[in-house]
Amino acid sequence: MDSKVSVCRFFVVLLVSLAMGHQHSAQARLLKDKPDRHNAAATARWLVSQNSWGSLNTISTDLGGAPFGNIVSFSDGEHNSGTGIPYFYLTTLDPTAQNALKDQRSSLTISEYPLGTCGQKDPENPSCAKLTLTGKLKVLKEGSEEAEFAKIALFTKHPEMKGWPKSHNFQFFKLDIEDLFLINWFGGPKPLTVEEYLHPKT
Amino acid sequence: MDSKVSVCRFFVVLLVSLAMGHQHSAQARLLKDKPDRHNAAATARWLVSQNSWGSLNTISTDLGGAPFGNIVSFSDGEHNSGTGIPYFYLTTLDPTAQNALKDQRSSLTISEYPLGTCGQKDPENPSCAKLTLTGKLKVLKEGSEEAEFAKIALFTKHPEMKGWPKSHNFQFFKLDIEDLFLINWFGGPKPLTVEEYLHPKT
Repeated sequence: MDSKVSVCRFFVVLLVSLAMGHQHSAQARLLKDKPDRHNAAATARWLVSQNSWGSLNTISTDLGGAPFGNIVSFSDGEHNSGTGIPYFYLTTLDPTAQNALKDQRSSLTISEYPLGTCGQKDPENPSCAKLTLTGKLKVLKEGSEEAEFAKIALFTKHPEMKGWPKSHNFQFFKLDIEDLFLINWFGGPKPLTVEEYLHPKT
Repeated sequence: MDSKVSVCRFFVVLLVSLAMGHQHSAQARLLKDKPDRHNAAATARWLVSQNSWGSLNTISTDLGGAPFGNIVSFSDGEHNSGTGIPYFYLTTLDPTAQNALKDQRSSLTISEYPLGTCGQKDPENPSCAKLTLTGKLKVLKEGSEEAEFAKIALFTKHPEMKGWPKSHNFQFFKLDIEDLFLINWFGGPKPLTVEEYLHPKT
């Protein structure tokens, strides 16, 4: 019986590890519960604080002015103390930073789906929340106060970035938000101003 | 001892269920292993066949010509028999279809990250693959052979779509691919033509 229990214990430890592994990859940093769906500002801020990556979209002159989406990591602050403003660590070796330096028009698109809280719903189902922040993608002046904030925000959530090659000349960028498009239920996008988003009522 | 074994068995069953649940949400339909990283065409086709959603990016005249990314579901065919061409089920109640009917320039951006195969790597790490398909987003003629193919492709991978409201006038769209941007390792994007992508060597 002791050996059965010990085999059993082994499986429990293994499965906890497996479950934690999946949780890590799928739900990294899901530190807050999803807000009430009627609270658009809180929902949008939750999506930005809990997601760590999205599609950052710029205008590509190389591709005839096409909208060019690129997978990037972002951060709006340290864990659970975000400002709602997404910061990025980009190199001009990549087209996104090149595009933004020519034309700042940009959007960041993120989804609730990879957080693992949409259950069995389809990713396009309106009750599986999605958010598009549209604005201007701006490079931050090296050594400025905001660049230092971006550095802490990004390196806290993306520690690997600290070791990225200096020769690639990564720079800190921010998305200066001008418009929000949030779907988190049926009935079309939720009305939400930049002011409401940046200063949400709790 | 019997009660201990039985409690233990309960935890094993519970943890298997949890692990399966996470696997379902994070790795739905991960039916093929990741191809060799040197095979760009196979890697791009794998990303398209194993992912079920991405950011579909269009030009928004309402937002001053900004690139507007939107989370959508897509399918390139039935499970493991995809064509590489992404199909969508969109309504003009949503800006993406509205934009595409005015200006077909578009891109679809997807990541390996939500498939759960990037391990502990950051989503922006070049070895965690990412793909941008750029081209023209075109509505398919209702009842055409290609629209019927799109319907099977989408409804197989996204069964929920069958029940979406008729009153929303969903239509089938395709992305006519003109350019591919694939990063799946260090050293910049992998050279990959549309021809190589559509007819990959196995």
